[in-house]
This record gives sequence, structure tokens and C-alpha cells, in this order.
Amino acid sequence: MSKIKRIGILTGGGDCPGLNAVIRAVVRTAALQYGIEVYGILDGYYGLINNKIKKLEINDVAGILPRGGTILGTSNRDNPFKYAEPNSNGKKEYKDVSHRVIETIENNRLDVLITVGGDGTNAIANRLFETHNIPVIGVPKTIDNDLNGTDVTFGFDTALTVATSSVDKIHSTAESHHRIMVIEVMGRYAGWIALGAGMGGGGDVILIPEIPFRLEKIKEKIDERTKRGKRFSLIVAAEGAKPEGGEMVYARKVDDPNDPIRLGGISQYVGNRIEDMTGIETRYTILGHVQRGGSPTAFDRILATRFGYHAVEAACEKKFGYLVGLRGQDIKLTPIEEAVAVPRRVAPDCDLIKTAMAVGTNFGF
Amino acid sequence: MSKIKRIGILTGGGDCPGLNAVIRAVVRTAALQYGIEVYGILDGYYGLINNKIKKLEINDVAGILPRGGTILGTSNRDNPFKYAEPNSNGKKEYKDVSHRVIETIENNRLDVLITVGGDGTNAIANRLFETHNIPVIGVPKTIDNDLNGTDVTFGFDTALTVATSSVDKIHSTAESHHRIMVIEVMGRYAGWIALGAGMGGGGDVILIPEIPFRLEKIKEKIDERTKRGKRFSLIVAAEGAKPEGGEMVYARKVDDPNDPIRLGGISQYVGNRIEDMTGIETRYTILGHVQRGGSPTAFDRILATRFGYHAVEAACEKKFGYLVGLRGQDIKLTPIEEAVAVPRRVAPDCDLIKTAMAVGTNFGF
Amino acid sequence: MSKIKRIGILTGGGDCPGLNAVIRAVVRTAALQYGIEVYGILDGYYGLINNKIKKLEINDVAGILPRGGTILGTSNRDNPFKYAEPNSNGKKEYKDVSHRVIETIENNRLDVLITVGGDGTNAIANRLFETHNIPVIGVPKTIDNDLNGTDVTFGFDTALTVATSSVDKIHSTAESHHRIMVIEVMGRYAGWIALGAGMGGGGDVILIPEIPFRLEKIKEKIDERTKRGKRFSLIVAAEGAKPEGGEMVYARKVDDPNDPIRLGGISQYVGNRIEDMTGIETRYTILGHVQRGGSPTAFDRILATRFGYHAVEAACEKKFGYLVGLRGQDIKLTPIEEAVAVPRRVAPDCDLIKTAMAVGTNFGF
Amino acid sequence: MSKIKRIGILTGGGDCPGLNAVIRAVVRTAALQYGIEVYGILDGYYGLINNKIKKLEINDVAGILPRGGTILGTSNRDNPFKYAEPNSNGKKEYKDVSHRVIETIENNRLDVLITVGGDGTNAIANRLFETHNIPVIGVPKTIDNDLNGTDVTFGFDTALTVATSSVDKIHSTAESHHRIMVIEVMGRYAGWIALGAGMGGGGDVILIPEIPFRLEKIKEKIDERTKRGKRFSLIVAAEGAKPEGGEMVYARKVDDPNDPIRLGGISQYVGNRIEDMTGIETRYTILGHVQRGGSPTAFDRILATRFGYHAVEAACEKKFGYLVGLRGQDIKLTPIEEAVAVPRRVAPDCDLIKTAMAVGTNFGF
Repeated sequence: MSKIKRIGILTGGGDCPGLNAVIRAVVRTAALQYGIEVYGILDGYYGLINNKIKKLEINDVAGILPRGGTILGTSNRDNPFKYAEPNSNGKKEYKDVSHRVIETIENNRLDVLITVGGDGTNAIANRLFETHNIPVIGVPKTIDNDLNGTDVTFGFDTALTVATSSVDKIHSTAESHHRIMVIEVMGRYAGWIALGAGMGGGGDVILIPEIPFRLEKIKEKIDERTKRGKRFSLIVAAEGAKPEGGEMVYARKVDDPNDPIRLGGISQYVGNRIEDMTGIETRYTILGHVQRGGSPTAFDRILATRFGYHAVEAACEKKFGYLVGLRGQDIKLTPIEEAVAVPRRVAPDCDLIKTAMAVGTNFGF
Repeated sequence: MSKIKRIGILTGGGDCPGLNAVIRAVVRTAALQYGIEVYGILDGYYGLINNKIKKLEINDVAGILPRGGTILGTSNRDNPFKYAEPNSNGKKEYKDVSHRVIETIENNRLDVLITVGGDGTNAIANRLFETHNIPVIGVPKTIDNDLNGTDVTFGFDTALTVATSSVDKIHSTAESHHRIMVIEVMGRYAGWIALGAGMGGGGDVILIPEIPFRLEKIKEKIDERTKRGKRFSLIVAAEGAKPEGGEMVYARKVDDPNDPIRLGGISQYVGNRIEDMTGIETRYTILGHVQRGGSPTAFDRILATRFGYHAVEAACEKKFGYLVGLRGQDIKLTPIEEAVAVPRRVAPDCDLIKTAMAVGTNFGF
Repeated sequence: MSKIKRIGILTGGGDCPGLNAVIRAVVRTAALQYGIEVYGILDGYYGLINNKIKKLEINDVAGILPRGGTILGTSNRDNPFKYAEPNSNGKKEYKDVSHRVIETIENNRLDVLITVGGDGTNAIANRLFETHNIPVIGVPKTIDNDLNGTDVTFGFDTALTVATSSVDKIHSTAESHHRIMVIEVMGRYAGWIALGAGMGGGGDVILIPEIPFRLEKIKEKIDERTKRGKRFSLIVAAEGAKPEGGEMVYARKVDDPNDPIRLGGISQYVGNRIEDMTGIETRYTILGHVQRGGSPTAFDRILATRFGYHAVEAACEKKFGYLVGLRGQDIKLTPIEEAVAVPRRVAPDCDLIKTAMAVGTNFGF
Repeated sequence: MSKIKRIGILTGGGDCPGLNAVIRAVVRTAALQYGIEVYGILDGYYGLINNKIKKLEINDVAGILPRGGTILGTSNRDNPFKYAEPNSNGKKEYKDVSHRVIETIENNRLDVLITVGGDGTNAIANRLFETHNIPVIGVPKTIDNDLNGTDVTFGFDTALTVATSSVDKIHSTAESHHRIMVIEVMGRYAGWIALGAGMGGGGDVILIPEIPFRLEKIKEKIDERTKRGKRFSLIVAAEGAKPEGGEMVYARKVDDPNDPIRLGGISQYVGNRIEDMTGIETRYTILGHVQRGGSPTAFDRILATRFGYHAVEAACEKKFGYLVGLRGQDIKLTPIEEAVAVPRRVAPDCDLIKTAMAVGTNFGF
């Protein structure tokens, strides 16, 4: 078995603070520890399909540790197994172009491909591994923290920090104006950010996708606060939070563009209803993209650096098809297949939920 | 002419970082310099109409300097000249209850009333002064910076800081994803925050209410960047920015709830159109309430402290009907009437606009 | 066995962001889950000895979650087993006054005492438990992260965040001025903050108490950077870092006030020597107390809340003599005795050190 | 009179957030408005003497607006009129090498030289202008804010923000531990940062170079707080603060390396004496270099951008020997000679001091 001489690396999917820290750690570990060359693939799978690639020297990664974004660029649409290209009539057609991935790998004599991304990016990586035997190592990335194979993903702590600091800011306004404020944070399928920012920011109500809510229960919580002389409330809602039961009878798809709730976001829906039900002035705000950009926290920089280092280690040990991840204090490997099978969601009976409930937080039930 | 012995103070209108710093400076200056008692009126004009008032001792303002919000509470609806109360049929009716203000002033033997607020709050204060001879001193407050009588209002620097740091965060995502990002900031009638955050964050396009924009001009700017190899653009838009000319023919009212632009905010409107026109993926985000809450910047704490001190000085000198304000390096007084007559807007030919244009920023024209 | 009805809580030792979050969680969990009353003991063991105590209601802990410090006050000198009091001649004398602790516990009918503190505070708690059978539950607290019984202590993430952001700031100056900058962070016996801030801030050299350093090795690292065209270097040093071997022959005690290194801090020592050895202009800065004050990060608020909740749970289960702690994703109990026996230090062969070395960081050896 | 075609720009002196923003504004204004080429001189006057220079294109300044430091490098020792070079014996000798500056200017056909720096850098620029007729435009830069010719310099707001946020952090520790905390900030000859951070952070005592202090007066202030039940105090001291009167009889030179006060900083001196005098535990911290590095605030980015734009305007109008500066809301020109003649210091009877005193701050007299 020959030694690894050239590593390719790509970043795929949505933005996530810490991507540059992973790239830096991969380049530096490869160069300084093993004399391995690293090639950066530009714009995620788009570059892998279209042979957009450049060598990364140590000086190329100087100063990028504290920077948001990714110096390699990314794309979150391009899939080599279902790639959109205009056909002879100029119409878009989806084709399997995975042979072009093989060409890029071979032309650049890459011995391994490190894919830094979420479930989409890593599922594709795994399929490349399984169907074409392409040697891949996965690195988990998502601000939503909804990936298995790791206790936590880099980017999450930064998103949580931004969200919590936003709850802090809005707290003072809610209190001064005697208002209910609904703060919508990211988390389409998993409520980690909402749960964390709700606990960290002292939210009175936290709504997450894993626990369907009832508006009356939220109202009860607010009434109870009113009775105690508290004239304001903070509701932290994950974008994927959903009402439950009688009130909304139709089966709701979170991604349906005509979904009446989606139009203004779940925060608008909850805000308007709760204002009607309580008579208390209510405002909502959708934090949006500020949660996923900017300089990573120290925690995320360190975790991303560890992931990058261990990805190179795994590459040298030819642990293809595996994903690095944090387990307790250690970095461990998990088969990518296992990691991307189902999202990592908040268990309604987990210790964080129990803790939040013990200190008085309501989850809409 | 007798000496001032008791000062009343209220905070009115929207939240604004620095309100507590004003209150603290008023209480401390009054107590330590002059032995004057200060009474805090709760919830703005609501408290003045309904005699909700409490004495403020030095210990009541301990530790509030760095805190957002206002310990006095606020309201932005209650107007003593047009106060909503249920009539005998239980229906809301608007009445002039300004005599109840006089009662509160007299019952509490207040020698002067300091009103900390925006144009609405201070216009009412001025009317109380003119029609009922109530001795008022105004303190200007608005994160939008659109008040005359001062070069700058406290709260603006904090809002600008939050907005600029958000542009920074979104910058990295735009660059990594090759996207156009539209960031909507506060500013319904004046574009100060958008102008500042656009200049501070390196926005490629800035849209402000004072300069109606044309979508084609924005497109031209983006095309020019594309030609230079720049695959992303940042558009910073004030919520009150408006399109001009042929494309939108109807006279548009910013507050019309059915206005197609208002529904998703101007950022959605611009984002969608520009995505169609350029074919570049575009996202928008509305920063919302995070701009007006939270701990004030050092600049705002100092300015608010100066306003509070000078409001007490003005009170002692019985400069009723005047508003304190920053003029260059000094604090000066202006008749409230003059200050609230028209909003302070960005002059399209001012030095800031010229500077922004010189470094390549487009204003949609 | 009777039910717990009254909990006493004290905070001891140095300041640490998250103390208020623990207090809040204890009060809210006790009141809302169990109807237990909570009594706050003022100024650590001083209050316990002198019966300074007050009931804490839910409203007493409102708004304290994001605040640094401790509403209970603290002291880091008072030890009931060795308490300094003036004797009849007015001279200070150290006595065992632990009977007064028993009196305070009995007079206030406290069923359990929660001690939030570092090894000092909790060692005393354990001795109270062992010698007087006082029912104690320990909560680990130290920004240095050097306590056993938990994977991490609250306060550490905040300290790390401040330290890393300081390294970021100093990075730009080092680079612009072509300087070596030495940044001294907290950590007398353990190098966790230095290691984290060095990894997070991209330090070229990290010096920690666990790994005695040699100045020539630091010089070699800097020479290597110079060769690569890098004209600046960042050295992150724990205050307890120590030189090794021939150069310094005497046995060095970190706390010796006459220690030549301590006088200006280890950073001055390293800075001066390295400037002499390399001829490159060198500056040093000691971050000091800014690392241990101020608003806790989201991570620390959540961890502190979990500790507070579980301390009450442990109290209800009468797990006296135990300390709550984070183990992987879970909160577990450890005998206090075990937790305070030896400090938790960085193992020189741990994965963090390996990772840091792999990306090129030098540890002075 | 021929048109300006090539601009040279250098940055000199200590680090200051906003330098990159000036460079960016100069390059973009020159290129986009006037088609002028810009050449960056590396490492301040060192590069000007030694012809270290490179062309700056628009892409060279992309992304630098939010970054601390200067992409051109700087030096704060090299003076063309007194330049240290080894003579034939290998000994350092100081010579006038200003002819080499002329050579660099001529060889690179620079029509104007923009010097961004403090009083040292700009005084040299002025001498080059006066003795050699070199066409210079000055841009004022100092975090200390002690330059004339402008109401405020960029970098100051960032330094003030860092210092104030540090006072905030230390506040919670002081309060929890019932301590006196002395925070030493930058400001050797002028107390602007100490005054601002003291006012913004709620310092009880502010010590600045412009107002010699008496320890007894500080003690009185602390005693007064103790009487009011306040068990902690915050003292914010400029590094150049000096005691007055009987206690210290010798004429003290701030830069004397043997000055007993300088050794540990004025904060140590004050801290130790005040602890002795009051018996209250006292700690001090020297903020140091964190005040002058890192990303500039929005305010500083905007001001720096304005300075850069107006420096190019002044260059085009051939206003050589002038310095740009902020005057109220406008940018105005001042002869460099006038600006650097004396430092801009805090007037002891200015409105800021009056305000601080009115709210109860003590200045050590």
C-alpha cells in the first residue's frame, strides 16, 4: 500500500464559521508533519466536476484561522450524480457526471479527498466512495449541529453565540416596552440553536422542531408571568418549529413555499397569534444569515483545527469512507454512511430539555 | 424666581441604547451637584397621565450605565392630547387628557420635566410647554439619528456598530457562496444607519430613503464587479429606501400595510428583482430589533451622560422648551419646536455620500 | 429521611463568569420544581461563619443570567478551620471557628449547603462534610479549568474567548510592526487557557506550566519563521510557565514574591530574553483580570445552568459530599475529595497538544 | 501645473486600527475617481529611504477595510534626517539620508506623498516638505487622540471601545470581591482614553496626565463610597498620570526607565498606595497592546475612509504641507506644522471633565 502524497480538499454546502480553520489545519499538518501536498478544489463539487483546483501552500493559509467563510468557495447545489447541464436544446438536464469526478481525481493524482460539509456533501462523498471507490474522508460541518458522528460540529458555537447575544439585546427592549418578543433562529430539522440560545439568553418559551407546540400552552406561560408582575416575555423559536394538534389540521411540509407559516417565518405566525391571544404587544425578528457568517469563536477554531488534523491522520491511515467527529474529549471516526443516515435531533427527554424545564422554560406543551 | 427642587424625567418612544445612561446622569448630577430630587415617571406619557411615578435615589441608578433599555419603561402610543380610553359604551375614544398631566406635575410638585425621546415624544413635550406652560427640557433620542438640534443622537453609534458587525458577518458568506446579499437596516425616513453600515462594512450598494434608486443602476454596479472578477456583492438598504421613476409609477407610502414592497421588506423586493436581473443567487436579511437593544457603545454612554448632565444644567437655568444637543464638540440648546419641525435627513450631496461614491459605492442612481 | 426544605448557597474564591447563572438555576429549580426555599450566604465562607445570609426569591435572580460576578459576593481568604480574628491584644490569630458554621446552618435550618468554588472552597466544604457531617454539594468553578471531577468548568470558555480575542487584536500589531509579541494569560498550575488561546489565536509558540520550556527552542522556531519570510511571531504564555534545565538552576517556586521571573511576569522574562537572542523587537502584555470578569459566553451560561439544576437534584437525592461535573454530554457526580485531590493539568501527550504541534506550534521544547 | 498621476503612501508609527481603511480609500478614490496610480511604501520611512515600494491595485485593498494593522507595514524608528546605519567600523551612526527619500520619490515618479502617522511621522513629513520641497499630505493617526488639526483621530474610538469593555469586565469582579481595581490605559501625554473609558465604564476615579493627582483625594472619594455602602471602586488611570505636590518632589520624566512609578506602571503605584491607605484589597491591570490592535469600529472605519478620500482630494488640489482632519461634521485642512506643534491635551475645565465631575467622578484633586 503506497503512501499518501496528495490530498484534495473541498468545502460544500452552506456557510459555516471554522471552514478556513479546517483548511489551514489540513494544509499545515500535511505539509509540516508528512510532506504531503494539498490541493484545494474550488466551489465544492462544482470544482471537482469541472477540475477547478489549485495547490495550497502554507502561505496560502496564513491568517485565515480567525476568518469566516471559506477560501475555497462552496456551492450547495452541484451534485455529480445529478448535475444540471444544458442539453443540445439549451434546456437544463440532470445527468450523472461522476466519471468527471474520477477524471479530476486522476488527473491531479489525488490520493484522498477530504470533504468538509453537511449531510448532503458527505452523503455524496460516501456514494463516490461506495460506487467509484474514491478514497474520501468526511469532516462534519453544520451550524445547526444536526449531524451524527460527532457530539458537536464546528460553527455551532459561533451560531449559538450570535443568537444568544441577539437574545440579550432584544431582552432589554422587551423589558422596557413590556412586549413579547419572538426571536427566530436557524434550525430547520433540529432545535439545537434555539435550545441553546433560549437557555443562554433566558428565553421564557423555546420552540423546536422536535417538540410540536400548542399556542395555548405558550399563552399559559405568559399569563403566569403576567400574574407574577412580569410584563414581558421572550420566545426563542427554531425556524422549523411546528404547531401541533387540532389547531392546524393539514399535514405541513416545512419546505412548502406556499405554507402560510413559512411566508413570514414561524416567528411571525407565533407572534401574531400570541398577540391576539394575550393582548400584549408582540414583535418578531428573524436573525437569518448573521448566524452563519463571521469570525468563528475560539471553541470552533479549536474544534475545526482538531478535525483538520485528524482528517489528515485518517487519510494517512487510509480510513476511507469515515468521518471525523468529537466524542467526549476525543476525536473518533464513524462510517460516513452511519453519520448521515438520520439527522441528529434534540431528544425531548434529554438533560438539556430537563434542565431548561426545571428552571421554568416552557416548550409549548 | 425660585430654585429647582424636583425634577421629573420620562423616557418615551422606541428602545434606544443609552436611555439608562441619561437617567443615571440626571439623577447623579441633580443629587450630587444641586441636591435636587429626581422622580422617574413610569412608561412614558402613560405614567405622566396616570401618575405612575417613583423617586429615584443614587442607588437606584447604580450599575445601569452599561445596560440597554430604560429602567423607567416606555410607551410609544400614549399621547396626553389624544389619549385612548374606553367610553361608557366600552368603545375606545380619543380625548385630550392633558389636564391630568398638569395634575401629576402639581401633585408631585415637579419643577421641571425632562423628556427623553424622539420627535414624537418631544413634540408632545413642546405642546405641553406651549399650551399649558409646563416647564420641559427635551433630550433627543433615536437610533435612526434623524433628529435636528443635535449632530448625532445617542443610540445611533450602537445601532451602527451592530449593523456594521452584521455586514461583516454576511460578507464572508457572500464571498464564499458567490452571492448577492441584501442587508436591511433601520431607517424609515433617514438613511444614516444604512449609509454608515454600508461605508463601515464595505457595501457595494447603499440604498437610502433620501435617494430613490433604480434597479438598473444596481445591476450595472454588479455587472461591473462581475467583470472585475468579483463574484459577490453586498447591498445595504435602509428599510425606507424607495425605487424611483418608470418602474414603479404609483405614489408609495412607506407605512401602507398593503404596500407590496413592505410585506417582505425592501430587501426582499430588491433581492428578488436583482436575482432575476443578474441571474446571481441572492439572499436577504432584515436585521430588525437587534439594532436597538443591548449595551450602548462607549460613545453612546458618554454622549448620553453629557445630555443628562446638560439637561439638569438647562433645568437649573430654566431654559424650558429647549432641547440639549451636540454641536461639534459642545453641548448646545435648541428650541424643541425647531428641532422637531422636520426630520434630519442625509443630504444627497453631503461629504459622506461624496466619500462613499469616491471609493466606489453605488447609491442606485 | 426527611425532605429537603431549605438550601443554602455560597460562592467562594476568585471571580468567574457564570456564578450568577448557577445561583439563578439553583433558585429557580428549587422554587419551581420542588418548592424548596433558597438562602444566599454572603461573601463566601465569611458569611457562613458570621451568619450573613438572605432569602433568595425568584425575583432576586431575575436578569442575572448574563451578568458577570456574583450577587452573593465572595471572599477568597476566609476559612472556617483557620479563621483570622484579632485576639485580646488586637493581634490577628488563626482559629478553628467551624462551630460557627454549624450554628449558621442550624439557625437558618439549612438542609444542605451548595458550595460553588474552586479547589480551595470545595476542599473546605469537604472537610465540613467529613468532620462535622455538614451536608454539602459542590459545584466546580474556575476559569483556569484545572479542577477534576468535570471535563470543563464554567468560566473557562469565557476566559478563553477573551484571551483569544486579545491574541487576534495583537496579531495585527505584531504583523504590521514585524514584532514578537508575548501574551501572558491566566493559568498558574495548568495551561488550558494558554493552550486554547494559542490554538484559537494561531500562536507560534505556546508556553504552559506542564511543559518546561527552553529559550533556544523558542528561538529556533522564530528563526524558522524568519527563514520563511515571516517577520513576526506570537507567543502565548500561561502565567505559570517555567523555563527548564541548565539555564535556570534553582528550584523555582511560582508564588515566591522575589522570584525574578514573577516580578514582571513570565512574559517579560521571555520577551526580554528572546529579543536579546533574536534581535527582533519584542513586546509583552499581561491580560490579567479582564479574563475573569464580564458577561459569560452562551456555553458557560448553559453549563452553569446545568450545574445549578443538578446541584439541586443531588441535594434532593442527598448525595452529600459530591460535586457535579460534566462528563461527555452528561452531568455526573464525583466525590468532592476525589475532585480536589490534585489539579487537572494538561497532559503533554494529549490530543490537543498533538494537534497544536501537528499544525506547527512550538511548546518550547 | 501638471496633474497628479502617481501617489505614494506610507504608514508610520505605532499600530492603529483604521490604517488599512485609509489605504483602501486612497487607492480606490485615486483609481476610480481620477485614474491615479498609487504606490505603497513599505515599513514607513524605512521603505522611503530604501526604495521598498509596490504598486497597489484595487484588488490589493479588497477585504482590508475591517482589518487591524497596515498592509504596508510600519516602523517607528526610522527617520530620514537621523537615520541609523553602521559606519565603516560597524558602529551605528546617525546620518541625514533625506536625499535618498528624494531619490525614491523621483525614481518612482511620485507626484505626492501621503503620510499616515502621528506627530513624529508628520513632523518628518513636514520637514521633508519644508527643506526639500517634497509634496506631502498628512493624515493624522493616533489611538491616543492627542493630535491637533482634527477633533478626533481614527483608532481612538476602537481603543476607547476596548478600554471601556475591559472596565465593564473588571467592574463585576470589583463588585463581587469588594475590591478596588485600578485599570491602566494608554495615554502618555493626554488622558483621552482614560477620560472616555472612565466615563463610559463608570469609573469612580479617573487619573490623567493633564491633572496631577493627590492620593489623599482618591482616598477621600473611596471613603465616601464606603460610607454609602459601596464596597468597591474603579480607578481608571492613563499611563502618563502623575502624582502631584509634597509626596513626590522630584521632577518626573515619564520616559525615565528608572522611574519608580514606571517600573510597574502608574497603576501599580496607585494600587499599592491606596491599598495601604484604605485597607481595602486592591488589584491593578495594564491593558497594554490590546487597545491598539484588531478590527476598527464602524466609527473609525468611516473616519479613516473620509481621511483617505480627502487626502487624495488635497493631493489633486496640491495642498502640500497640509493635514486632513475632522472639524465638527466636515473634513478640513490644517498646515502640518500647526498640527504637530503641540499635543492636543484634555483641558482640565473642558465640558467632558465638568460632566464627569457632575456625575461624581473624582480626578484626584
